[in-house]
Amino acid sequence: MPLPFPILSAAEAAAMIENGQTVGFSGFTPAGCPKAIPMAIAAQAEAEHAAGRPFRIGVLTGASTGDSLDGALARAKAIAFRAPYQSDPTLRAQINAGETKFFDMHLSVMPQMIRYGFLGPIHWAVVEASDVTAGGGIVLTTAVGAAPTFLQKAGKVLVEVNRRQSPSWLGMHDIYQPVDPPHRSDVPIYSPVDRVGSPLCTVVPEKIAGIVETDLDDETVGFAPPTDVTRRIGMHIAEFLASEIKAGRIPKTFLPIQSGVGDIANSVLGALGAHPGIPNFQMYTEVLQDSVIPLLQRGRVTFASTCSLTLSAEMIREVTAQLEWFRPRLILRPQEITNHPEVVRRLGIISMNTAIEVDVFGNVNSTHIMGRQMMNGIGGSGDFTRNAYLSLFSCPSTQKGGKISTIVPLVSHMDHSEHSVQVVATEWGVADLRGLSPVERAEQLINRCAHPDFRESLRDYLRLTKGQHTPHHLGAAFKMHLQFMETGDMRGVKW
Amino acid sequence: MPLPFPILSAAEAAAMIENGQTVGFSGFTPAGCPKAIPMAIAAQAEAEHAAGRPFRIGVLTGASTGDSLDGALARAKAIAFRAPYQSDPTLRAQINAGETKFFDMHLSVMPQMIRYGFLGPIHWAVVEASDVTAGGGIVLTTAVGAAPTFLQKAGKVLVEVNRRQSPSWLGMHDIYQPVDPPHRSDVPIYSPVDRVGSPLCTVVPEKIAGIVETDLDDETVGFAPPTDVTRRIGMHIAEFLASEIKAGRIPKTFLPIQSGVGDIANSVLGALGAHPGIPNFQMYTEVLQDSVIPLLQRGRVTFASTCSLTLSAEMIREVTAQLEWFRPRLILRPQEITNHPEVVRRLGIISMNTAIEVDVFGNVNSTHIMGRQMMNGIGGSGDFTRNAYLSLFSCPSTQKGGKISTIVPLVSHMDHSEHSVQVVATEWGVADLRGLSPVERAEQLINRCAHPDFRESLRDYLRLTKGQHTPHHLGAAFKMHLQFMETGDMRGVKW
Repeated sequence: MPLPFPILSAAEAAAMIENGQTVGFSGFTPAGCPKAIPMAIAAQAEAEHAAGRPFRIGVLTGASTGDSLDGALARAKAIAFRAPYQSDPTLRAQINAGETKFFDMHLSVMPQMIRYGFLGPIHWAVVEASDVTAGGGIVLTTAVGAAPTFLQKAGKVLVEVNRRQSPSWLGMHDIYQPVDPPHRSDVPIYSPVDRVGSPLCTVVPEKIAGIVETDLDDETVGFAPPTDVTRRIGMHIAEFLASEIKAGRIPKTFLPIQSGVGDIANSVLGALGAHPGIPNFQMYTEVLQDSVIPLLQRGRVTFASTCSLTLSAEMIREVTAQLEWFRPRLILRPQEITNHPEVVRRLGIISMNTAIEVDVFGNVNSTHIMGRQMMNGIGGSGDFTRNAYLSLFSCPSTQKGGKISTIVPLVSHMDHSEHSVQVVATEWGVADLRGLSPVERAEQLINRCAHPDFRESLRDYLRLTKGQHTPHHLGAAFKMHLQFMETGDMRGVKW
Repeated sequence: MPLPFPILSAAEAAAMIENGQTVGFSGFTPAGCPKAIPMAIAAQAEAEHAAGRPFRIGVLTGASTGDSLDGALARAKAIAFRAPYQSDPTLRAQINAGETKFFDMHLSVMPQMIRYGFLGPIHWAVVEASDVTAGGGIVLTTAVGAAPTFLQKAGKVLVEVNRRQSPSWLGMHDIYQPVDPPHRSDVPIYSPVDRVGSPLCTVVPEKIAGIVETDLDDETVGFAPPTDVTRRIGMHIAEFLASEIKAGRIPKTFLPIQSGVGDIANSVLGALGAHPGIPNFQMYTEVLQDSVIPLLQRGRVTFASTCSLTLSAEMIREVTAQLEWFRPRLILRPQEITNHPEVVRRLGIISMNTAIEVDVFGNVNSTHIMGRQMMNGIGGSGDFTRNAYLSLFSCPSTQKGGKISTIVPLVSHMDHSEHSVQVVATEWGVADLRGLSPVERAEQLINRCAHPDFRESLRDYLRLTKGQHTPHHLGAAFKMHLQFMETGDMRGVKW
């Protein structure tokens, strides 16, 4: 049956979007993002700018995106406002130059803030689909993100049907949006495997302004192979969790795992899979990376719930080729649900995220370089950390060839406070901060996590003041950062 | 029917508690805390110390307590470890001198961390009761706190039956503890009025080591009458919320209110009650103060769910005298439930808490004076703020007679990050930070909330660096704090 929606070129679709409007895009990481329409919007912005006319839009997404979305639009200087997360180098530079306004949010909160009207109107939803039905059913692709909310709240909808993604993705998604207060009920997920919603998003067909056909792979970036440092971090975390099971502080059946994005997360999951003291486990996470697919195939991971399949093109093809095998083992949900505090606390998630820096009292910086420059955003780390059964952070103990210590006197920006950070791991070991006073936490972090090159210096910092609950010296707290900004090296600070 | 438990003097009960043990006490604020037994433990500690023997215990509570608990034990130097919150001047001094180890926690997390074994074993639960049954039923008094968890996990139990509190408190409590992961279900509260648990706590009768009879009022402290500053803060918040209802961003039926403790909270509730644009409302909060009782009586507050009735002795007597009238309008729950992220996000709570200081980018310090000295603790503010429908913080724009600005370049300790703080109010006005970039937030906070004496100085700070997402100058970020520590005045900083 032919679809009752106009088939458009990407340029025709982009031409409907006006300067100053706000667009919500599907996807979460480069997975599931539209590609052709954002590139066409970028081209249109360049043409408008060349003609001396302004053209900038508000860009709302699930999380980060691919180069054809944030990259192309940023290069075209077409983004006025951006939320809730990004990781594109050009866009990052514009945000840090103050040229693009960026609102850095907890990812679970983004959809409800849009529904509540806190972020203003959404003019367009632009979503990638593997299939569309005449009644306004939209089968998403490799991620869900905030697409269901954008589709609900947007005035008009453009669908990018990606022929590279099989329509058999139908059934891999579980689309559920909570009703808003005061009429909200529970999110009825009591186990990662619970399916509570619809296999497709639905919109009023009249809102669909057109369909653009594409054939483009997700622009996911491969991971670096494990290094000695990431392997040691993974090993320490696996060993720590196994010892917690042995001590009876984690159930013998283990608990669902959430894992952040990146090379360390990839290594940690590999280490969990390899450790004999870790039973087969489930994942309830926001991003699934390549390392989990073989764990699923080997039965080490028995089920995975995620918002996004951030897989290499080869891995996506492998999953697609065996979709019937993965169907009972894998589900894609909206970020409001994968990251929902209710579900995270109920399931007893063990959360594992990476830090930019950690201070000696256990506060974590996840977002800002030297307190000023935005890296990517807080992402889902706050959703998971605050509500987890057990919350872990990891990072290498140094950066820039040993010149930066990631363990510092005071984080230059704080995203996760001492009240929520329970365990920290570097390649040197694990600091278990539960139940410790600030001074005891500092001992743990310095002795077990800091690089030996910085341990004595950090101890010297603590000697500057005495007789305080949190013995900071506000005049010296950023001396390591300031010296780095001046000399490029944090080592050898004179307190 | 006589109870099958030994009736003890407070001294006999205290004598069972050994040096080095951990004791969990009932209560939340001075309400519902045991009084006679902790005073007897303090006396015992003093006697032991006089005899040259060590005597210090771990003290776990719901939140702060009364003078006969934290005060007496601190004066006797009997507290080795303390969690999760306190507000006693002697104890605070010992914590800040590093003599007592203090672990500052989100109050909703405390009970589950105890059950998970993260804080070690609990040797004793000492709880105040209005009645006890032969089968181990314990009817609590004016607060619940973490008593149900202490009773479940403690090796032995001592009950202080307070004859001042009517046994007719039976039915005013709703005792519910979630099952632990991986078997946890939903917390079935869908409206503040929902009753989901038992009217009394139950323990294995064999664990009850004895009963001590007392007749002591809760040691609640009265509030200062509203000042011009607190009245203006209350008025601004009421006006802001009324305008949000008008704009359709808060439902016309309004949403349940959570309100922190103290004079400002008292004033804000008074202002909400008086504002014609605020409909009658419900409360879902952790502490109920005097100001709410007349609002309940006038029907402005139609129902209140709380962890604690932190009322003056006269107000408690008024409530007790009309217990049948209050019964369908008032309920007391454990802190794990009043502060539960699942329930807070589901009900769509509007959270209102006080700040020690707020930085120009919207980060909030709730705990540390000048970054080092512990005030009270984070309490429930993190539980509510992170999960609220809308989160507000308030504080006077200055302290110490105008010498301290509560709006500063960088908070000296961070408890609530920019990602969770949505609205800030001082006596000057309201800064609505939703959807704003850091630079835009700074404009709002400086122009609407900072005291005029500090506005130009704060703008000068922002001029120190340019072209950053968050334009901090780490070498100058604490200059106002450092000048205050040197001269006693933050005004007129030379950047």
